[in-house]
Amino acid sequence: MTLPDTMRTAVLTEPARIEMQERPVPTPGADEVLVRVGSVGVCGSDVHYYREGRIGAFVVDYPLVLGHEVGGRIVGVGRAVDAGRVGERVALEPQRPCRRCRQCKAGRYNLCPHMEFFATPPIDGTFCDYVVLPADFAHPVPDRLSDDAAALLEPLSVGLWACHKAAVRPGDRVLVTGAGPIGAMAVQAARAAGATDIVVSDPVASRRERILGFGATEVLDPVEGFDAAALEVDAFIECSGATPAVLDGMNALRGAGRGVLVGHGPESIEFPVLPLQTKEVTLTGVFRYVDTWPTAIALVAAGRVDLDAMVTARYPLERTEEALNADDDPSSMKAVVAVATDVLR
Amino acid sequence: MTLPDTMRTAVLTEPARIEMQERPVPTPGADEVLVRVGSVGVCGSDVHYYREGRIGAFVVDYPLVLGHEVGGRIVGVGRAVDAGRVGERVALEPQRPCRRCRQCKAGRYNLCPHMEFFATPPIDGTFCDYVVLPADFAHPVPDRLSDDAAALLEPLSVGLWACHKAAVRPGDRVLVTGAGPIGAMAVQAARAAGATDIVVSDPVASRRERILGFGATEVLDPVEGFDAAALEVDAFIECSGATPAVLDGMNALRGAGRGVLVGHGPESIEFPVLPLQTKEVTLTGVFRYVDTWPTAIALVAAGRVDLDAMVTARYPLERTEEALNADDDPSSMKAVVAVATDVLR
Amino acid sequence: MTLPDTMRTAVLTEPARIEMQERPVPTPGADEVLVRVGSVGVCGSDVHYYREGRIGAFVVDYPLVLGHEVGGRIVGVGRAVDAGRVGERVALEPQRPCRRCRQCKAGRYNLCPHMEFFATPPIDGTFCDYVVLPADFAHPVPDRLSDDAAALLEPLSVGLWACHKAAVRPGDRVLVTGAGPIGAMAVQAARAAGATDIVVSDPVASRRERILGFGATEVLDPVEGFDAAALEVDAFIECSGATPAVLDGMNALRGAGRGVLVGHGPESIEFPVLPLQTKEVTLTGVFRYVDTWPTAIALVAAGRVDLDAMVTARYPLERTEEALNADDDPSSMKAVVAVATDVLR
Amino acid sequence: MTLPDTMRTAVLTEPARIEMQERPVPTPGADEVLVRVGSVGVCGSDVHYYREGRIGAFVVDYPLVLGHEVGGRIVGVGRAVDAGRVGERVALEPQRPCRRCRQCKAGRYNLCPHMEFFATPPIDGTFCDYVVLPADFAHPVPDRLSDDAAALLEPLSVGLWACHKAAVRPGDRVLVTGAGPIGAMAVQAARAAGATDIVVSDPVASRRERILGFGATEVLDPVEGFDAAALEVDAFIECSGATPAVLDGMNALRGAGRGVLVGHGPESIEFPVLPLQTKEVTLTGVFRYVDTWPTAIALVAAGRVDLDAMVTARYPLERTEEALNADDDPSSMKAVVAVATDVLR
Repeated sequence: MTLPDTMRTAVLTEPARIEMQERPVPTPGADEVLVRVGSVGVCGSDVHYYREGRIGAFVVDYPLVLGHEVGGRIVGVGRAVDAGRVGERVALEPQRPCRRCRQCKAGRYNLCPHMEFFATPPIDGTFCDYVVLPADFAHPVPDRLSDDAAALLEPLSVGLWACHKAAVRPGDRVLVTGAGPIGAMAVQAARAAGATDIVVSDPVASRRERILGFGATEVLDPVEGFDAAALEVDAFIECSGATPAVLDGMNALRGAGRGVLVGHGPESIEFPVLPLQTKEVTLTGVFRYVDTWPTAIALVAAGRVDLDAMVTARYPLERTEEALNADDDPSSMKAVVAVATDVLR
Repeated sequence: MTLPDTMRTAVLTEPARIEMQERPVPTPGADEVLVRVGSVGVCGSDVHYYREGRIGAFVVDYPLVLGHEVGGRIVGVGRAVDAGRVGERVALEPQRPCRRCRQCKAGRYNLCPHMEFFATPPIDGTFCDYVVLPADFAHPVPDRLSDDAAALLEPLSVGLWACHKAAVRPGDRVLVTGAGPIGAMAVQAARAAGATDIVVSDPVASRRERILGFGATEVLDPVEGFDAAALEVDAFIECSGATPAVLDGMNALRGAGRGVLVGHGPESIEFPVLPLQTKEVTLTGVFRYVDTWPTAIALVAAGRVDLDAMVTARYPLERTEEALNADDDPSSMKAVVAVATDVLR
Repeated sequence: MTLPDTMRTAVLTEPARIEMQERPVPTPGADEVLVRVGSVGVCGSDVHYYREGRIGAFVVDYPLVLGHEVGGRIVGVGRAVDAGRVGERVALEPQRPCRRCRQCKAGRYNLCPHMEFFATPPIDGTFCDYVVLPADFAHPVPDRLSDDAAALLEPLSVGLWACHKAAVRPGDRVLVTGAGPIGAMAVQAARAAGATDIVVSDPVASRRERILGFGATEVLDPVEGFDAAALEVDAFIECSGATPAVLDGMNALRGAGRGVLVGHGPESIEFPVLPLQTKEVTLTGVFRYVDTWPTAIALVAAGRVDLDAMVTARYPLERTEEALNADDDPSSMKAVVAVATDVLR
Repeated sequence: MTLPDTMRTAVLTEPARIEMQERPVPTPGADEVLVRVGSVGVCGSDVHYYREGRIGAFVVDYPLVLGHEVGGRIVGVGRAVDAGRVGERVALEPQRPCRRCRQCKAGRYNLCPHMEFFATPPIDGTFCDYVVLPADFAHPVPDRLSDDAAALLEPLSVGLWACHKAAVRPGDRVLVTGAGPIGAMAVQAARAAGATDIVVSDPVASRRERILGFGATEVLDPVEGFDAAALEVDAFIECSGATPAVLDGMNALRGAGRGVLVGHGPESIEFPVLPLQTKEVTLTGVFRYVDTWPTAIALVAAGRVDLDAMVTARYPLERTEEALNADDDPSSMKAVVAVATDVLR
């Protein structure tokens, strides 16, 4: 296959403005692969950068390319990579750690202080035709996974990593606060890990209804209120960023329960420390993930997790801006930018 | 309900001889419950004691009552137990630890040196109409579980405990050697814990065929032979007691894999220590289980594990001896003694 | 030895008032031992109950006997206890769990909802001549430990349990906030676990100076301020109850570090959740301890921990009230009530 | 500093023959450092390759340079390395993993299938004046550590990794079988981790005597025999390679104890599996180590481990062969080749 010299790129040029540009197709380094982008999922962080221009300490230095949930196909390899990989369908793990610091060597490359992460300033993301990345972060995907599913392995990884941190085990009772896309991923991951009671709280009735289809066994309305302490859950996964949800979770955990904060809200909150002490509850959070793709792929391939059912809208690359605004529609769960429907299944 | 003074009891009076006797109905102690026995599963250890009169250091001192896989209904309680529990359907956890030694206090009561265990000499088992046990070891069972399923929570507990020790996680690849009832429990437990590739080896074709229905994704014939080292499994659960199966498992484990010995074979075997060193494989075994009933009940109630499908024959209490010989039939998986079909669902 | 019928008892009869009373000597139950009390350490919680009449939800219903850090000698046993234990020197683990709930059976009896704990309302404590407790909670103490040391195994247990929760490992760098008696126990426990850098912050210069003698390798003044983020510690143990110390600790932890809250401050605080997420820091607390006495005894006997050096004042039983006010003196570290210097070493 | 073009190299040219050769001084790659070798410890594996020409599947392809326990000083850096590191005293971690496979990314780079390890065929070792290695595997060493100590951080790492795998905790009782250099490292590492009872078995009286100086609290003679089951240890670390020692350890472990095989003996042994099952003992082994240098350095710097006391003989580089034969003397513990006493402390 002859590759073009330039490619379409959807570029964030100023707050809330995406512009289509032609940019050079990148060349893979020695240990890298060049990937023809298929589908790209729209993440809440993309929307946040698009609208606000920053997330905490990460400030956009325009221009920036967004997008980091990617399925595609390898179309070129660096000199140190097996040429036989050309043509392989892959899902992209969008991070590039240093591999040399103590965190990397301890198996926690997600905490690498030298991390370069797609679509996190100043690193460009994947709303474009081609990207390069380290060969070992391009994970082979079997044909039974759609391109959209390949892209959504990234948010599924967030759910898997949260369940890993929450040590969800067979027979566990779990509380997930927030029924958005990440909440749905946490629910599916918890079910895949054997959780049998999965309680979800969300203030929006339609979202509560919808998440029952992804594995929730009981839904609660936090506006109406509920007796959190009576829930007695083994694990709590916060996916809303709402402070009251954190408090509900702390109260809902039984003795020695594990809480994990996934959703981003205020950097500092009024927080009940007493349950940490009197119940020896453990609380932590997630920051990206470590090598979750093989697990994610195995679960989707085995039918334990359904990613296609999460896609509520698809847009061509030229309509990326529209995709970024899709969540204005409350019925939206996950928008996908279909960059190259022609070259992939 | 008025209880009788005496009850039917199937007693092992000498090697390979079961005799029906009338014995007094026991009286529950302060912290105990009296249970009307419903179903009792036949375990390999029952068969072993029946035929051989011993298992390792445990030697039968005749007479002995066998049977320790039990579902039933509470019909009486000791003075320190909530009287409201009378009428409750329960599954019996057949062990009575001291609760005071360091193992008990560390959450390892299965290793209690003072353990009294049903049907392990000199403690009588449950092939009879009524038994007493500590109230907290009689676990409430919802109506959607059959009596047989309630009884088979015990061997399921063995499978769950093995998967716990093997740290089976979502997306894992697991090797189970032996496709008998315990192998089938291990397979179902591994699937419930999220394992997506479950390879089972067994020399009998019909057993290999059957276990595909319980969640095995691939079956292998050890007589024909296979390349164990190529399996590269995360976890290995030995359920056959066959020495060659242990060797297969040690070779099949990938680096840092976990092996668990469930099946009982020779006390000492020719064993390859090198994989422990060059692959840092971890090997352990299981001895009973710790508080697995709530998990087992939740999994069966949620439809993640199917116990009824494992029952291949049912016998009345008077035909207990026939049940103990049921495994002469190679198509037998699990025989159940239906002690009291009248009083339970 | 003939035991008396009555004994001296220091009773909290109203807020901030201790009255000496004669009370009957208790009789041990079947599984209990009767202990002649030797030394009793004064704990901050005793002082709190004495002055405030409550700690959180635990409200004193007068009269109440305080005291729960105890070394003594067995002088009587219940019928189920080995009579050979009479005469044994023991340290008392002051808790009585139910042994039957799921927390107890999981090895977390400290979280037992049915716990009875010495000197926690409404359970009487040990500022008296004799107490009874379950035989397995009276831990044998070798002669090389003094009576005071036997008593102080209780606060050492808090330090050990905190280090266990903080997973302190050889070569670790640890921050302890608060240089009071619990801080000193945490420091000694961390050193015993192999920590090589132990940084302690405390606003009082004399306390900073003193803790260098217990194993701190560096001391900091939080009033003067310091760059917490630059500390990059593996573990953080909060022993002051001060909210700013919690914030320091959260900032001081490196990626994947572990924080443990020991000191009691406000039930709810303004809390920085971001480090939980961006650093995947884990935070928990301690509530009592689980079977730490054997470890504590071994460490003191081996000279790894020095408890005698912590005692700054000793009082006879009649002067218990004075002991409860000893911490008015800023040079006080640990006051001990020497109940029976005559019968013990 | 001007570096020479060639350097002295002690080369194994055929079985049991070391020849001094001049070889080119290597040039560091982009991410590498060039190290002037100071001290090199002689390891049992060096001796084995020297005498036998192979260890298991690793067969020497002559010529080969032995030596992999190294302290030295950085004298040159690759272009991607901070030039400020020139002059830094370092200890060498003698492994070079791929950093890209799943084992590497999981924090288990010691199990990397693409590992290159100093002095393991076909990779040359360090009995020479200069070596290159990845910059992050050259660990900075404070001045209070001698060059010999810097070299011996490598065998100490084996002891630390073994204690890590054995989960040695404060107050533990540990059995170490074998009182040679690795046994002494295991003993010191166990003591540093808080073990208070460290029992060592060895058939040689002088070695038993000597190890009491490194932290053993009790020594046993396996020839005379002892009641292993009565030892009831929490952890067992096998450092002799002798099959009877494995059996002793399996018997000595209490319920849920952890055994680790460090010493290399036969690849397959007659092995008692029953303790794995009836005591739920866990058994594993060690293969190199993961990022243990920072911990090792901290422990030696803090005086918790003494490495200098282990050196029983020192040889110049030209007498490397003599050093390899030093263990013919039963009083030898650790021989060191002092390559460059002039440039280092």
